[in-house]
Amino acid sequence: MPVIDVHNHVVPEGFPESPPSCCEKWPSMKLRPDGKSVVMFGAKEFRVLDSRCWDVARRTADMDKEQIDVQALSPMPELLSYWMSADDAVAVGRHANGLIGEMVAKAPRRFVGLGMVPMQDPQLAAKELSALRSAGFAGVEIGSNINGKPPGDPFFDPFFAEAERLDMAVFVHALHPVGTDRVVGPHRLVTYLNFPVDTGFAVASMITGRTLEKFPKLRVAFSHGGGTFAAILPRLAMGWNGNAELQKSFAEPVKTARRFYYDNLIYDIDLLRHLLKVFGSSQIFLGTDYPFDARQKFPVEFLDQLGLGAPEADALRGGNAAAFLNLSR
Amino acid sequence: MPVIDVHNHVVPEGFPESPPSCCEKWPSMKLRPDGKSVVMFGAKEFRVLDSRCWDVARRTADMDKEQIDVQALSPMPELLSYWMSADDAVAVGRHANGLIGEMVAKAPRRFVGLGMVPMQDPQLAAKELSALRSAGFAGVEIGSNINGKPPGDPFFDPFFAEAERLDMAVFVHALHPVGTDRVVGPHRLVTYLNFPVDTGFAVASMITGRTLEKFPKLRVAFSHGGGTFAAILPRLAMGWNGNAELQKSFAEPVKTARRFYYDNLIYDIDLLRHLLKVFGSSQIFLGTDYPFDARQKFPVEFLDQLGLGAPEADALRGGNAAAFLNLSR
Repeated sequence: MPVIDVHNHVVPEGFPESPPSCCEKWPSMKLRPDGKSVVMFGAKEFRVLDSRCWDVARRTADMDKEQIDVQALSPMPELLSYWMSADDAVAVGRHANGLIGEMVAKAPRRFVGLGMVPMQDPQLAAKELSALRSAGFAGVEIGSNINGKPPGDPFFDPFFAEAERLDMAVFVHALHPVGTDRVVGPHRLVTYLNFPVDTGFAVASMITGRTLEKFPKLRVAFSHGGGTFAAILPRLAMGWNGNAELQKSFAEPVKTARRFYYDNLIYDIDLLRHLLKVFGSSQIFLGTDYPFDARQKFPVEFLDQLGLGAPEADALRGGNAAAFLNLSR
Repeated sequence: MPVIDVHNHVVPEGFPESPPSCCEKWPSMKLRPDGKSVVMFGAKEFRVLDSRCWDVARRTADMDKEQIDVQALSPMPELLSYWMSADDAVAVGRHANGLIGEMVAKAPRRFVGLGMVPMQDPQLAAKELSALRSAGFAGVEIGSNINGKPPGDPFFDPFFAEAERLDMAVFVHALHPVGTDRVVGPHRLVTYLNFPVDTGFAVASMITGRTLEKFPKLRVAFSHGGGTFAAILPRLAMGWNGNAELQKSFAEPVKTARRFYYDNLIYDIDLLRHLLKVFGSSQIFLGTDYPFDARQKFPVEFLDQLGLGAPEADALRGGNAAAFLNLSR
């Protein structure tokens, strides 16, 4: 069983000029005197990064060092561009998807593609999804919210209907999270405190919004172990069990929660043990956030701390990811 | 060791007339033809309730049935009145605190008091706190946010300084939570999905806001097991360990988290086992939400599922609560 990392990101080495239609947050790359690159959104420096974001040789060498056989490549989430017009987001998306397609073509046994689509226009997102399917992508990455709307909102049904029909995996990643007004201290705390919360709300929305009831063959995964959702689920289940209105509104939440996939990017082995109990050992796979600062180093050794036997260990290392991505197709 | 329930609520059987100064959300009680009472805020029916909210004999009989020796009585959180002028909130607070004082006087071996103070004016809150201390209260209940500000905001330092000085316990309860725009489905889901999130942010704010660094003898507890906080802590710790700016801003978060108290109102024994690992068996105590719908029935049996030996079991049943409330004074 190959070891598969479903949570890692790419950024193109450069970007096309901003089109006339766009806009204050168009991406670009600035080369610094020290040789590092800075990805910009409009005039704002967003993140310092290096060639690991786009260089296949460097990336596969790093994968070899950490025993990763396959990466499912997805765009750095800030590229998702939901805050632009849908047409401008398509332009950014095709550029990012183009890089992913090239990387997969250069090393088809090491990479699979999770592209991006303009979720602010679900019909257009469905159309772009079809093109990605034709180009051999395994699925897409979407945000934990789209301009404040959680993915379980029925607004997105046309997209999920097409994802189900095309057998495209959907990886939901934390993005522009809720509750930044609740944070005291340095702004970078938002990354640590609010990302998991937004992801938790995304999971909840797809349960209470009946996404899998409407699209039963859809495969959906959540970043960061589903964020805060496992901490909320028992309370949601208690409420559901005691309330007829909720029972009519959506299916029993614990069962639905165990049909989603979750990565293990949670930095704590006791929490991972708990998530295995909550979601089941068939639903959790490896994710690292490579090549960014928050990445889980030595991800296989991290999993090994669980001390699991072969069938479960293989499932977590790669089997569950292969099922989520449907690599057998 | 007596069994102590720190999370339960009272509501006065009636309220004084709205003062001329106040305001669209003044509380009142409406008696329904079926004999039930409805607590109103302005013209809005908030909750159907019964005499368990104020009747000492009925309450102690229920406590006997469920092996609870002592309840720490706190107001129904919607009474906290942070959205009124501070003076009007003082009027509501003195009325609610008056009921708590009467109940404690009627059954001093069964009840201790957790009152309420106008946190929207921390200096005035400190003054009211002093009166509660003189009246024999063990502490106060405050909201997980005060008009959107989390309790770790330095705005509240004058209050916490006085709580530390007066040896008054502070029980932080979920209230008017963040992220209601992230919920898909019936509005009542906010109670289940958003309460834990707001409590989680409250815990985080008191770590990143250095509350215990400024007031080291302060005793603070959080409702609902700290909500989502345990799910966020490993990510916060990872961020802190890798970042000098955060290390300068506040102390190591795991250690601080293990100085707070948390109730066990989480409805799931596996989650409770996990919280015991995260926070330590000296920091968690029993809470039931009596007499409301979301209450944990048979709370002692729930704890017994842990299968703990005498010293730890006694700590969870009452020892930790007695330490939080400083019942020995």
